[in-house]
Amino acid sequence: MKLATLRTGEPDGRLLVVSRDLSMALDVGVIAPNLLRALERWDEVAPLLHALSDKLNAGMHPGAMPFEPRECMAPLPRCFQWCDGSAFLSHRQRMDHASITAPLPELDSVPLMYQGGSDNFLGACDDVRLPDERQDIDFEGEFGVVVDRVPMGATPAEAARHIRLLVQLNDWSLRALGPREMRSGFGLLQAKPSTSFAPVAITPDELGDNWRDGRVHLDLEVEWNEQLFGRPNGREMHFSFGELIAHAASTRRLSAGTIVGSGTVSNKVREAGTACIAERRMIELLEQGAAATSFMRFGDRVRMRATTRDGEAPFGAIEQRVVGAL
Amino acid sequence: MKLATLRTGEPDGRLLVVSRDLSMALDVGVIAPNLLRALERWDEVAPLLHALSDKLNAGMHPGAMPFEPRECMAPLPRCFQWCDGSAFLSHRQRMDHASITAPLPELDSVPLMYQGGSDNFLGACDDVRLPDERQDIDFEGEFGVVVDRVPMGATPAEAARHIRLLVQLNDWSLRALGPREMRSGFGLLQAKPSTSFAPVAITPDELGDNWRDGRVHLDLEVEWNEQLFGRPNGREMHFSFGELIAHAASTRRLSAGTIVGSGTVSNKVREAGTACIAERRMIELLEQGAAATSFMRFGDRVRMRATTRDGEAPFGAIEQRVVGAL
Repeated sequence: MKLATLRTGEPDGRLLVVSRDLSMALDVGVIAPNLLRALERWDEVAPLLHALSDKLNAGMHPGAMPFEPRECMAPLPRCFQWCDGSAFLSHRQRMDHASITAPLPELDSVPLMYQGGSDNFLGACDDVRLPDERQDIDFEGEFGVVVDRVPMGATPAEAARHIRLLVQLNDWSLRALGPREMRSGFGLLQAKPSTSFAPVAITPDELGDNWRDGRVHLDLEVEWNEQLFGRPNGREMHFSFGELIAHAASTRRLSAGTIVGSGTVSNKVREAGTACIAERRMIELLEQGAAATSFMRFGDRVRMRATTRDGEAPFGAIEQRVVGAL
Repeated sequence: MKLATLRTGEPDGRLLVVSRDLSMALDVGVIAPNLLRALERWDEVAPLLHALSDKLNAGMHPGAMPFEPRECMAPLPRCFQWCDGSAFLSHRQRMDHASITAPLPELDSVPLMYQGGSDNFLGACDDVRLPDERQDIDFEGEFGVVVDRVPMGATPAEAARHIRLLVQLNDWSLRALGPREMRSGFGLLQAKPSTSFAPVAITPDELGDNWRDGRVHLDLEVEWNEQLFGRPNGREMHFSFGELIAHAASTRRLSAGTIVGSGTVSNKVREAGTACIAERRMIELLEQGAAATSFMRFGDRVRMRATTRDGEAPFGAIEQRVVGAL
């Protein structure tokens, strides 16, 4: 099942079921007005949504309309918690060369995770308004999961059973602001403007074998101004999503609709390219002695699509432009 | 005007107007079902609530019922963003001796702030369930403000005009988990379990002269197991709440219902005592060569009340017990 959120002027939008091929959508606001509400009573709502999804995929629903990502918000335009890990070790190892903080001895045993702002997520085609391009604007391509309520102290196996939806996202970063915040000990805040999401959130079964071991085994294809930038695969995530959720729920419960992110998708092999500029710059620094690639400029465009071997994009595409704040 | 939230089984509870003396309450769910909704259309809702508050304070509302803090949730049981500063420099200077991170050169020019979990705030009398007392359980007495929507890039003066309510809170900390998270650069997450709030949120006018310069000029009286622990005053906040909000809104907008905290209230003079255990331990370490005070144990109780010179407690009292997780 694939779900999206129609822009209506309401802060949470209105829930849509979207066909597997992303061609058609059905307004299902009578079942749950929005996705946040649906997640709060998932066991009751999901069977009804699945039934409509089946009809839609069979081309048997007269109320269906064409699906238009540009008319949609993020699948969850806001939620009550957003925790983003950094679970790809090749990304962390390359970034550690920036030496903002000392390398962590528990690199491969304790997930690294920050608490993000969850009150204003951007839709897949929304312009990204930022105050100053001198803040070193960077994209970060990631996968994430949406959970229903997770009790405090859940084990990774228990936590994994609360995964309801998968998402694909761009965790925008302002790299010039990161080092000061990382040195402060209090972590990332100004360095993390609003995060963007691909048009649809999907149930894990939509990926078939490409969802296994708590990881999304898809290439994340990143294009910057219509040039291929990287295509790392999600399979090298060192911690599974179950482990990341359990980390977030260690000392408090997580409410329904909490999103937990993978961190920037990254692969050991150099040929995969990267899903963010900063990591490419670190590779350039290591290999050539200096970073050659600049950060983004106002007017730049980024496109991100997770793709199967058959070239399908189950989450649709993030296609955004960075612009100066009004 | 004073507002509280009745526990109803719904995640956002139901909005109450509470009399100035905290004796009586009025269910105002017909005007706005809950405080989050009220804040989203504050300009429209506030005059109606103020009119009912005036009637209630004049003893002229037949629908009033006794106000029972034990039947209430946090004024905002959840919201979409919670950013906590550390704006009392005497607290920061004492804590810096712990040397988890290098002292920041911008100590008095850039606010220190972390993004907190906002999905599960605790009511003033709720038990605080935590997984393990060996994680060094500590209380942190603070003030905070609740804003309506703040645009990205608001100046401190503009930001201050979005302050709608003041709150008093206990930002629970697990001190044993802090150093690793602070060293990681990604900041506090497991070290910050759910935050607790005094029973009522109040409009700034309720404090009269005790709200000025964007600061709460009240003593914050902290008792631990019925022993006075500290009584620092909020006036020494180095950054005003307007400055803290502007810091949080520098690279993204803040949605209605965002809470911005002061950080642990602290005074330069030793006689004021402290509003958290860790700061007292640092004073002991500096003055006596070793920390003598232990952290909290399961079964311990903490009481926090901001008090006027006349001994009134405008926010009511936080009165909680720490217990082991079920």
